[in-house]
Amino acid sequence: MKEIRYPNGIVRSKPPSRTDNHSRRGFRLEDDLNASNQYYKDLNIALIYKKPTPVQIVKVDYPKRGRAKITEAYYRTPSTTDYNGIYKGRYIDFEAKETQHKTSFPKYLVQPHQIEHLKGVSRHGGIGFFIIRFTSMSKTYLVDSLEMIQKLEDPSAKSIPYSWFEEHSCLLQEGLYPRIQYLKAVDELYLKGD
Amino acid sequence: MKEIRYPNGIVRSKPPSRTDNHSRRGFRLEDDLNASNQYYKDLNIALIYKKPTPVQIVKVDYPKRGRAKITEAYYRTPSTTDYNGIYKGRYIDFEAKETQHKTSFPKYLVQPHQIEHLKGVSRHGGIGFFIIRFTSMSKTYLVDSLEMIQKLEDPSAKSIPYSWFEEHSCLLQEGLYPRIQYLKAVDELYLKGD
Repeated sequence: MKEIRYPNGIVRSKPPSRTDNHSRRGFRLEDDLNASNQYYKDLNIALIYKKPTPVQIVKVDYPKRGRAKITEAYYRTPSTTDYNGIYKGRYIDFEAKETQHKTSFPKYLVQPHQIEHLKGVSRHGGIGFFIIRFTSMSKTYLVDSLEMIQKLEDPSAKSIPYSWFEEHSCLLQEGLYPRIQYLKAVDELYLKGD
Repeated sequence: MKEIRYPNGIVRSKPPSRTDNHSRRGFRLEDDLNASNQYYKDLNIALIYKKPTPVQIVKVDYPKRGRAKITEAYYRTPSTTDYNGIYKGRYIDFEAKETQHKTSFPKYLVQPHQIEHLKGVSRHGGIGFFIIRFTSMSKTYLVDSLEMIQKLEDPSAKSIPYSWFEEHSCLLQEGLYPRIQYLKAVDELYLKGD
């Protein structure tokens, strides 16, 4: 694939950049979101990016010819969520998770630093949410960060029932361009008065 | 250093995380900005982060004990600027550069993808700027992205004179907490009416 022709006639010359080899195992949702973000960027709708995986680099080789080769490095724990950017003048920040569970979302999939960060985003006036995909149901939901955090911090259960998402979040439309229309849900939930 | 006591009595338990070994050669400005961002976060003033260096991971070892070790990886070209986040409900995005030149700032220090990205930030209603440090003068300036881009794209010179920064940008106050008071300049330049 050398170029992408969007239905509206816009042509992109390069495919969206691939994710790290390491992190590709099963991250279909990430690929879909990256493609959607590329679409939103190409059509001048929004600028939203996935942050690179933080890596602590220990050793680098500089071969005479060719580019620097990192020969020893380690994964570091991120301190924020994976995605942020700007849409209609607003700061956007979210975390995306997928699960194969059919009846509920296991809470351990969300890290404490992600909760803290999203609380901060709300405090500072940004738009924060989660995108949750139930892969076995082929359904993807967008849910407001504070609403989901309240549920995550409720100690009475280790998971959130699927039915809760049906009631409290926006089912996202999926297609070709963009693959996940999550900014439509952002309009619905946060920008109706704008 | 196990903790930081800010003058206002707030105590932080951990020092700001170190930058990658590789990228430490001379990036004093980066360290100052990371410490300033940590201060702004700790005092609940803003949430602004440096993005991790993008790395393409090719090989990972999983030793029986101990954490995953990356044994082959390469630097990738970033597609955005280094810093972004939220302040007073506004999307903030900037690139930081330092030079040892005394009389001018060499234009090649700014990459085309950084210019494109910052143009996009403005188009979408965000606040975009450059932080430029002249190390030999010990002066650090904040300059609006579009104003500096106009200068960067003017083909008549390969550098921007130091005197231009004196006239067209905000000299940043430096101290202990925060080390660089760049949000004060953001208030001045962008948020006076708020």
